[in-house]
Amino acid sequence: MDKKVFGVDIGGTTIKMGMFSSDGELVDKWEIPTRTEDNGSNILPDIAASITRKREELSVSKDEVAGIGISVPGPVDDNGIVHKCVNLGWGVFDIDEEMKKYTGVPVFAGNDANAAALGEVWKGGGKGYKNAVVVTLGTGVGGGIIVNGKILSGSSGAGGEIGHILVNHNETEKCGCGNKGCLEQYASATGIAKIAKKKLKEDDRPSVMRNARSINGKVVFDAVKAGDELAVEVAEEFGRVLGIGLSIVADVVNPEIFVIGGGVSRAGQIVIDYIEKNYNEYVFHASRGTKFALATLGNDAGIYGSAKMVLDGVGS
Amino acid sequence: MDKKVFGVDIGGTTIKMGMFSSDGELVDKWEIPTRTEDNGSNILPDIAASITRKREELSVSKDEVAGIGISVPGPVDDNGIVHKCVNLGWGVFDIDEEMKKYTGVPVFAGNDANAAALGEVWKGGGKGYKNAVVVTLGTGVGGGIIVNGKILSGSSGAGGEIGHILVNHNETEKCGCGNKGCLEQYASATGIAKIAKKKLKEDDRPSVMRNARSINGKVVFDAVKAGDELAVEVAEEFGRVLGIGLSIVADVVNPEIFVIGGGVSRAGQIVIDYIEKNYNEYVFHASRGTKFALATLGNDAGIYGSAKMVLDGVGS
Repeated sequence: MDKKVFGVDIGGTTIKMGMFSSDGELVDKWEIPTRTEDNGSNILPDIAASITRKREELSVSKDEVAGIGISVPGPVDDNGIVHKCVNLGWGVFDIDEEMKKYTGVPVFAGNDANAAALGEVWKGGGKGYKNAVVVTLGTGVGGGIIVNGKILSGSSGAGGEIGHILVNHNETEKCGCGNKGCLEQYASATGIAKIAKKKLKEDDRPSVMRNARSINGKVVFDAVKAGDELAVEVAEEFGRVLGIGLSIVADVVNPEIFVIGGGVSRAGQIVIDYIEKNYNEYVFHASRGTKFALATLGNDAGIYGSAKMVLDGVGS
Repeated sequence: MDKKVFGVDIGGTTIKMGMFSSDGELVDKWEIPTRTEDNGSNILPDIAASITRKREELSVSKDEVAGIGISVPGPVDDNGIVHKCVNLGWGVFDIDEEMKKYTGVPVFAGNDANAAALGEVWKGGGKGYKNAVVVTLGTGVGGGIIVNGKILSGSSGAGGEIGHILVNHNETEKCGCGNKGCLEQYASATGIAKIAKKKLKEDDRPSVMRNARSINGKVVFDAVKAGDELAVEVAEEFGRVLGIGLSIVADVVNPEIFVIGGGVSRAGQIVIDYIEKNYNEYVFHASRGTKFALATLGNDAGIYGSAKMVLDGVGS
C-alpha cells in the first residue's frame, strides 16, 4: 500500500513541510511561518491545519497517511518528550501525544540536528552508511549520530551535541552555552569569521579578505582558493580545531563516515580537505581513514529525516 | 528450557570462564592460562576443550548450551571480525565462525571493554540502565558504551576508545597509542601515579605519600582520606582531567549513568566525588546531573558481559 508520510521541520521563523511517498520520494514541499507567541501554543495546530489543507489539495485521505515526523530545535528523547525548546517558547511535554490529538495519525518527533542526520544518511551525502556522524557547520555546530541506522538521541535528547565539546582550555570568551572553549566557538560560521577577523587585525600582511564587506566562511574559502596566505592560515586553524573535535567524536562512536553540512560546507571539498588531514593526525589509530563527504540535502535534510523517523517508527 | 551459557574473557595471561544459567546466575567459574605462542593459535582450541571438560564434569549436554560469548582484548566488529589483537598474536579473522568450528554451538564475540560494560549494565553497577558508559581505570582507561541496552561497537570495533580522547594539547610525552595528551595519560592507574610522582618531586611539602614503597591510586586516595594536602591536589588534577574527558563523552552520547570500575575505583566513592564535581562544571547543560556509580562485578564483568552477548544474540 503506498501510504504518504509527512515530514515537518520546525525552525524559529518558518516551518518546512514535505509530503513523501513511502519509498522516500518527495512529492511536494512548502512552508508556513512559525508563530512563537503565546508560548508557541499555535505551532502544532498550525502544522495540523496545514497538513489537512495539503491533503485536501492533493486528494490524500487521512487513512492514506502513515504518520507525521516532526523535527524540533531542542532536545527530544526517544519517548517523544520535548525537554524545553526556548526558541519556540516550549516547556517539557509529550509532543507525540499532543500532536496526535490534532491529527489522529501516528506522530514521531526528534531533535532537528538528529533528524537532519537521519535524512542525510537516508537520501543524502551519507546514503548507504549505517554508522555516521552528520556535522552541521552553521551559526553553531550541530551534530547527529547514527548508530546501526538509528538516531542516537541520548538519555535526555542531548546526544550528538558535539558543538560543545571542550577543545580549548585557554579560551577566555564564553560560548552561547555558558562554557568556554567549545568546538562551535571556532568551527561554526561565526567561529571561522572570528578567527579571520582576529588574524586580519593582528597581522598586517595583505589579504583579499580585507576587501570583503563582511567576513564569512565563503569569503575565507574563496580567498584560500585564490591562494591568499592569511586565509590559508585561517582555514588551517579551523581545520585543526574541527579535526581534533571530530577525532574525539570518533574515539567515542567510531563512525564509518562524517557528513559535513551547513553554510560553511558550501565552499565544497576544500572544507573537507582541511578537516580530514587534521582528523587523521589526531584520531586513535583504529579510527584512522574514516570517510568524509559533503551533505547534499541542504535545508531539506530535516523534512527527509522527519519522514524517515515515521517509516522507522511505524516499521519497528 | 533452561539452557546454559558460557562467558569467556580472554586476557593476555589468563582466560576467565564462567557457566551461567539463562537467567544470568553464575553457576561455576574457572581459569585457564592464555597460550600466546604460535600466533595464539592454541587459544580457541584450549577454550573449546575446557568448555567440553566443564560440560562433562557438570553433566551438561551440548544441546543444553545456548552459546558461547567471548571477549577479546582488541577491536571486534558487530560481525564478529577481530581487527588484530597484538597481545594474543592474532591478525584479522572471523572469530565467531572459527570458534563455532571447534564447538558446534553459536558464538558471539566482542571487545573486552565493551563486554565488561554490558556485564555491569546487566548485573553490576549500571543494572537497570539502558544508556550507560562504563569506564575502566586500570593500566589504561577503557570505555564501553551501551545505547538502548546494546553495545556500541563502532564501524571497526573501536567504539568507546575513550582513553584516547585528546585532553591536553600541551603534552610532550607520548601515550602508548603514539599520540600525545590522551585521557589515559592522566586518569589511568599509571597516570595518577605519574601525576603524584611529579608533584612529590616538584614540591617539598610533607606528604604521607613519601613513605609509600610505590605510588598507586590506592596510596593517593588513602592519603586524601587522611587529609594529605599534596594528595588532595593530585586527586583534584585527576578529577579535573577525567571530569573533562567524561563531559566530552556525554556531549556525544548523553548517557544516564557513568559506571566507574578498574583498579583505581577500588578507593571507592571518593573517586567518583572528584570526577563528578568536575564533570558537572564542564558538561553541556542538557547533560548535567548524569548519575555516577561504582562498578560491582570486578574481574567478573567480562564473563558476565560475554554471557549476555549470547543471550542478546540468540534472542535477536
